[in-house]
Amino acid sequence: MSDASGNRGPLEVGYDVPAALGMAEAEIQTPCLVVDLDGFEKNLALMQAEADAMGVALRVHGKMHKSPAVALRQIEAGAVGVCCQKVSEAEAFVRGGVRDVLVSNQVRDPAKLDRLARLPGQGARVAVCVDAAAAVGELAAAAARHGVVLDVLVEIECGAGRCGAGGPEEVVAAARAIAAASSLRFTGVQAYQGALQHRATHAERASAFEEVAGRTRASLAALAAEGLTCAVVTGGGTGSYALEGRSGLFTEIQCGSYAFMDADYGRILDESGRRLDARFRPALFVLTAIMSRAAPGRAVCDAGLKALAVDSGLPVVHGVTPPPGAEGATDVAGLGVRYAAASDEHGVLEDPTDTLRINQRLRLIPGHCDPTCNLHDWLVGVRGGRVESLWPISARGKGF
Amino acid sequence: MSDASGNRGPLEVGYDVPAALGMAEAEIQTPCLVVDLDGFEKNLALMQAEADAMGVALRVHGKMHKSPAVALRQIEAGAVGVCCQKVSEAEAFVRGGVRDVLVSNQVRDPAKLDRLARLPGQGARVAVCVDAAAAVGELAAAAARHGVVLDVLVEIECGAGRCGAGGPEEVVAAARAIAAASSLRFTGVQAYQGALQHRATHAERASAFEEVAGRTRASLAALAAEGLTCAVVTGGGTGSYALEGRSGLFTEIQCGSYAFMDADYGRILDESGRRLDARFRPALFVLTAIMSRAAPGRAVCDAGLKALAVDSGLPVVHGVTPPPGAEGATDVAGLGVRYAAASDEHGVLEDPTDTLRINQRLRLIPGHCDPTCNLHDWLVGVRGGRVESLWPISARGKGF
Repeated sequence: MSDASGNRGPLEVGYDVPAALGMAEAEIQTPCLVVDLDGFEKNLALMQAEADAMGVALRVHGKMHKSPAVALRQIEAGAVGVCCQKVSEAEAFVRGGVRDVLVSNQVRDPAKLDRLARLPGQGARVAVCVDAAAAVGELAAAAARHGVVLDVLVEIECGAGRCGAGGPEEVVAAARAIAAASSLRFTGVQAYQGALQHRATHAERASAFEEVAGRTRASLAALAAEGLTCAVVTGGGTGSYALEGRSGLFTEIQCGSYAFMDADYGRILDESGRRLDARFRPALFVLTAIMSRAAPGRAVCDAGLKALAVDSGLPVVHGVTPPPGAEGATDVAGLGVRYAAASDEHGVLEDPTDTLRINQRLRLIPGHCDPTCNLHDWLVGVRGGRVESLWPISARGKGF
Repeated sequence: MSDASGNRGPLEVGYDVPAALGMAEAEIQTPCLVVDLDGFEKNLALMQAEADAMGVALRVHGKMHKSPAVALRQIEAGAVGVCCQKVSEAEAFVRGGVRDVLVSNQVRDPAKLDRLARLPGQGARVAVCVDAAAAVGELAAAAARHGVVLDVLVEIECGAGRCGAGGPEEVVAAARAIAAASSLRFTGVQAYQGALQHRATHAERASAFEEVAGRTRASLAALAAEGLTCAVVTGGGTGSYALEGRSGLFTEIQCGSYAFMDADYGRILDESGRRLDARFRPALFVLTAIMSRAAPGRAVCDAGLKALAVDSGLPVVHGVTPPPGAEGATDVAGLGVRYAAASDEHGVLEDPTDTLRINQRLRLIPGHCDPTCNLHDWLVGVRGGRVESLWPISARGKGF
């Protein structure tokens, strides 16, 4: 909190921050985000090992967690840097100590381009995408104005129907314009298909990836024919990274959700038919407390639409917070406990055996981790039932 | 931003705040929330006039906007105070200068009860709900510990299947427990049915309200028979306020969304079959900019799931931002421009006549105002195409 003179006092537990270091999980103020540090660290090591085995770089997607503290741990585990979607996110990561940032998106607003071009002066390597030759002029001018050289990738549309140059001719035209600008360096291409990430089976994703690979291959051939070399071919996500990684086309994968996981990714099946959450552990939870038991069979918790995103479905109940010192959460799904409905500040739980008690803490696995992280200011790291870390979500709300 | 010593410098446009006073709407950094001040002021005056005509008090729901600056304007227009759903929201409103706050929800966590009981010491009248006699003890103890008397209402379940005492017996038991506690004052009842607010026609809402009125009447009779007087009977919202206001049962209505409106409330029909947005004007917009025009018929804007809530449907395109000095927004819906899909940071727009241009600003009416406000840190007030005010959303993320 700030006093009248604008000076900041210590953070107040419950108002500014949901927990204090050393606190038992059952004392954390709810609703808030809790990270199971053991699971998080295992997820980081596993994805890095996968990328290393495939011979591709791992550039972690910071749009998921929006927290430089998390990004620095991913880089320590071997990631080459961060990607993010917004200039203000890139600013937050650079301010937080990340030295290699790709804005994996289009930036067209002159004020945003100016801000982007200031970042190399703060000691970071900065790259950005364009999807049209017409986008290059303002970008080049901003870089020249600040006396920097920006790395630029051409984004290829590969089936998601969003941004991206439509075909090899448009890709080559944009690449030529980049290469011709002295304040820009043509670095390669980005081919990301967000819509395929969440398809249920590996076979469905592999089939959709054929279009990604085909379009990418065609653009790479057209660029090579023009003598335009791609140092970087980047794309992929938690649902598809093995396809990009083994394709022989990509040099870099852009996974984000693997670090925390969510209910939607947990359900998809890998090549061997196993759920993805059997490999990458659910490590992010919305911690919530029971606040009403007014009717038999029903409990109401304090996490609704303002504490969790429901665009990919309702949260899944992971379990009841254990007493301090114990590991993991007590499973209550076997008792039929289910998150049934979300309103703004309430979650209605079906509890057929009336097992939940007032003030008991529940861990919920959010349906979609990215917009859920964007609702909160802090990630509370827990291990062995106690709070071990408090990481600010510094880029929360940084959408500019 | 804070420097290393923790002192705060001036707010940086684009990083900390989306706009500066006096700026043209087309220069505001996007995505962000814009308030049409003329529409907002008309909405405030209209709802106050309705409440006055019905002879009920208007207690505005601060959970919608989470901004003390907005609440103070509503109080200036005649509202008796604010209600909100969380203790940390109440703290933000009290810190922001609001002197009468009802937490229209259950609070059971001991740390939260303690925080609540500190608020009267900061010069505010504070009231809270309970829905069970078992909830009274901890609340009374917290109030006694801080030497204050808290106003307490019993929440009645009236059909939404969420919190609330189930019937007159439970209501009377809770009221008796409150009346018996020397640190609490039994103030009345709350009967709010959130689920009926959004039903499409007045007839459907009137029909659902019969259950609300019946349950409320039964509890009021049971309380009267015990000599327990209700100074306050509170409830209702933007969709139903005329039903509560004219019922002869309610002393106070709790409207929130009317001040800003949203696409979901805009569509419902009033008694005379008119859309509600014909009376209460859409006054809250997500301002977004076009960032890609990579394919014919499609434009991509910079507002997705992290800038607008989609739990009540996709946003509706209101129009293109006019040049400075002009009023309102240029309608483009007649050209078939439609927000068709939201991903985390992108909105895909159908634009069959290719009318939208790169960097052009669009005003979107969000589907649901409450969780949309909770995504942003600022409300940018505009009048005549220029920024007139910057109001912090101080209770954003205050879910504790």
